[in-house]
Amino acid sequence: MRNYLAEFFGTFWLVFGGCGSALFAAGIPDLGIGFVGVSLAFGLTVLTMAYAVGHISGGHFNPAVSIGLFASGRFEAKELVPYIASQCVGAIAAAAVLYVICTGKAGFVIDPNTAGSFAANGYGTLSPDGYNATAAFLAEFVLTAFFLIIILGATDKYANGKFAGVAIGLALTLIHLISIPITNTSVNPARSTSQAIFVGGDYIPQLWLFWAAPIAGAIVGGLIYKSLLEKK
Amino acid sequence: MRNYLAEFFGTFWLVFGGCGSALFAAGIPDLGIGFVGVSLAFGLTVLTMAYAVGHISGGHFNPAVSIGLFASGRFEAKELVPYIASQCVGAIAAAAVLYVICTGKAGFVIDPNTAGSFAANGYGTLSPDGYNATAAFLAEFVLTAFFLIIILGATDKYANGKFAGVAIGLALTLIHLISIPITNTSVNPARSTSQAIFVGGDYIPQLWLFWAAPIAGAIVGGLIYKSLLEKK
Amino acid sequence: MRNYLAEFFGTFWLVFGGCGSALFAAGIPDLGIGFVGVSLAFGLTVLTMAYAVGHISGGHFNPAVSIGLFASGRFEAKELVPYIASQCVGAIAAAAVLYVICTGKAGFVIDPNTAGSFAANGYGTLSPDGYNATAAFLAEFVLTAFFLIIILGATDKYANGKFAGVAIGLALTLIHLISIPITNTSVNPARSTSQAIFVGGDYIPQLWLFWAAPIAGAIVGGLIYKSLLEKK
Amino acid sequence: MRNYLAEFFGTFWLVFGGCGSALFAAGIPDLGIGFVGVSLAFGLTVLTMAYAVGHISGGHFNPAVSIGLFASGRFEAKELVPYIASQCVGAIAAAAVLYVICTGKAGFVIDPNTAGSFAANGYGTLSPDGYNATAAFLAEFVLTAFFLIIILGATDKYANGKFAGVAIGLALTLIHLISIPITNTSVNPARSTSQAIFVGGDYIPQLWLFWAAPIAGAIVGGLIYKSLLEKK
Repeated sequence: MRNYLAEFFGTFWLVFGGCGSALFAAGIPDLGIGFVGVSLAFGLTVLTMAYAVGHISGGHFNPAVSIGLFASGRFEAKELVPYIASQCVGAIAAAAVLYVICTGKAGFVIDPNTAGSFAANGYGTLSPDGYNATAAFLAEFVLTAFFLIIILGATDKYANGKFAGVAIGLALTLIHLISIPITNTSVNPARSTSQAIFVGGDYIPQLWLFWAAPIAGAIVGGLIYKSLLEKK
Repeated sequence: MRNYLAEFFGTFWLVFGGCGSALFAAGIPDLGIGFVGVSLAFGLTVLTMAYAVGHISGGHFNPAVSIGLFASGRFEAKELVPYIASQCVGAIAAAAVLYVICTGKAGFVIDPNTAGSFAANGYGTLSPDGYNATAAFLAEFVLTAFFLIIILGATDKYANGKFAGVAIGLALTLIHLISIPITNTSVNPARSTSQAIFVGGDYIPQLWLFWAAPIAGAIVGGLIYKSLLEKK
Repeated sequence: MRNYLAEFFGTFWLVFGGCGSALFAAGIPDLGIGFVGVSLAFGLTVLTMAYAVGHISGGHFNPAVSIGLFASGRFEAKELVPYIASQCVGAIAAAAVLYVICTGKAGFVIDPNTAGSFAANGYGTLSPDGYNATAAFLAEFVLTAFFLIIILGATDKYANGKFAGVAIGLALTLIHLISIPITNTSVNPARSTSQAIFVGGDYIPQLWLFWAAPIAGAIVGGLIYKSLLEKK
Repeated sequence: MRNYLAEFFGTFWLVFGGCGSALFAAGIPDLGIGFVGVSLAFGLTVLTMAYAVGHISGGHFNPAVSIGLFASGRFEAKELVPYIASQCVGAIAAAAVLYVICTGKAGFVIDPNTAGSFAANGYGTLSPDGYNATAAFLAEFVLTAFFLIIILGATDKYANGKFAGVAIGLALTLIHLISIPITNTSVNPARSTSQAIFVGGDYIPQLWLFWAAPIAGAIVGGLIYKSLLEKK
């Protein structure tokens, strides 16, 4: 059970810290943290929890990561369902706590027709800078593929593995620096689902992309590392 | 005595660097560091002092951390009072030096009715972005609980412990990225007390929350790690 | 072949992440990542891939780096052509994917007469802040020379080599913090070529500088380290 | 000679990167790096060179650091003059190259009556945010004292010394996050001297403070660590 709890708390922290920084602090006039701060926050949730509970569960905090690790032969099939369930429950619990804190400010409302609402992911009219579904899918696919290459490479037995938490956490920062304007950045179906549930509207029918593209990218990234880069 | 002095200097640096960056540099027009810079500054005070004096005192620099470590069985009861006293004296000394530097600029005044005045923590009318007491308590509670989970996990004997200073310092950066608009971010009763003393006004009666919420969160975080995550 | 593929994927990531962050996220009003975010992104592409595939190919991702390492006696002549070819193909492939994503936003056009267009490098009228060719050459030369000194020093057998990926990645961040306004920062002929191809116009005849200055700087940096700093 | 050359190149890089980022990139409208970027740049010059040439010279790059290390018994008196000379020559050489690059932009002039001109340090009318000499001295003194405590602690034989380059480099970032508005941040007499020479005017008679305060702070910081914190 310890590993499932580690995934629960790790994914809770990813959503609470990453989406929370976007909700509370990104848009404050003059002093707000902007997309740089949100990118840093998402990466640091993974960096901090990788060193805190990585030794317990491996530190996935993301269904696409678990599936990509499975595709590359580094994770067992029977663990997929409990890991992904723990991640989704953790993400949704974090979104619920964020929601309660948000209601502590006068005038808080969630508008399901605005891009980036409640830090949710979207494309087309729900893309922060107006990117269509093709661009959104391609970006999420490529970014998740490289995320898996970095995860698999940095934790390779021939690699300098003690730094994996730094490399993987900062990879998520980098991914956000690139793509917040495109999709508000997912690469993580649990994170997308948790926020969409609270926004509703067109965010729900758009959720398919934030499962399909990250998972497809993760599988391709996993296979690239396993077949082309890993020492045989 | 070396460990108490290490806590004194470490907490001095936390307040001098974290609150100092907010006072001197956050709001400079166009070039100012904003909340991203202040978040980085707070985290780097802990990261730098963790590597500098962590081997002497453990590097708490925060009464809530000392109490959370005690709750999880990693810190002795008899050390609580001298550690917390050293931390509070260090924090207040730093606030005094900040005050003297502030008076070196013409027109410096502290307005006890403004949110974030002298980098103090507050809620309601003294919350930087207008969050009420419930939201403030919940945010401080959750953030300190995860701060303790990260501290306990990153220093666990099964963890990659050499990186604990990086993980813990950057956790404090992350915590600030999330919550400066809510409470100006405490998670540290010594830091809150040191600034409130110099501002006065309604900041004094609000201090209870910045002792109660971080300490409650630290105890819960400590118990979560000990009972649910730590290898038996 | 594994090392050439590692260079392909590493340089793809450098261009996709570094130039992508500039294209998609730098200029968003109020929330955009600006030059700080782009600098961070370029550095993190190298930091992440250094830990991911550095153990496979050495993690050059840059023709100037390969040539500088050769000049200092740490890289074989026969590997220069396949490494540089892999890097250029990876960079161009990344630029192509960036181009496709860009076309997913209504109104996307590339103006070959604007500085920084499609994240390309330039000088004179194509310098982001109007620096002439002499200043551009000098800046690219000095920055690449120090980049090689850092690479050679951080991977020296007497150095604390496990941190080389951090030092080298963050050196690229630093280089961008200094010089984006001068040339949009190259220090990497593959990165410059990949973007210029898609912009055309005067960016093509300016490409010589972004091969000549980084390579000259890399050779001089390599020789400085080998002859003046390395333990005999 | 290798250690003196390492100090020359290291201090060149500190001034070229730190002051260069301020000159070229800090004030660009909308996209500029601001004080956060300059703070990051200064810190990364030290972090990168600490890993690159720290194994050669110890990586001081700063007369105050050399003197503080001497005061704490960790550096030999006979090395003080050649180290400080190497640092000052490196700093001035870097300022000269920065000057040449600056002249490559039309309209470049240095105004000796403006605060922060050519990235020089100042107080009173030459303080970026108008702090008087007392505040400037106190800030430089306290910040250099803590810089030495961090340097001595992080390189203590009982410390986790492999991370010293990270801790010390990021300490310089933190110091800049706090104090750019006060003095444009020195804590390094070589850095202050190199810029003042090129600006002239009242920056020359103000130079005394940027030798006296950092050196006094460094000595006090060195003695605090040696007498109060170091294990006997």
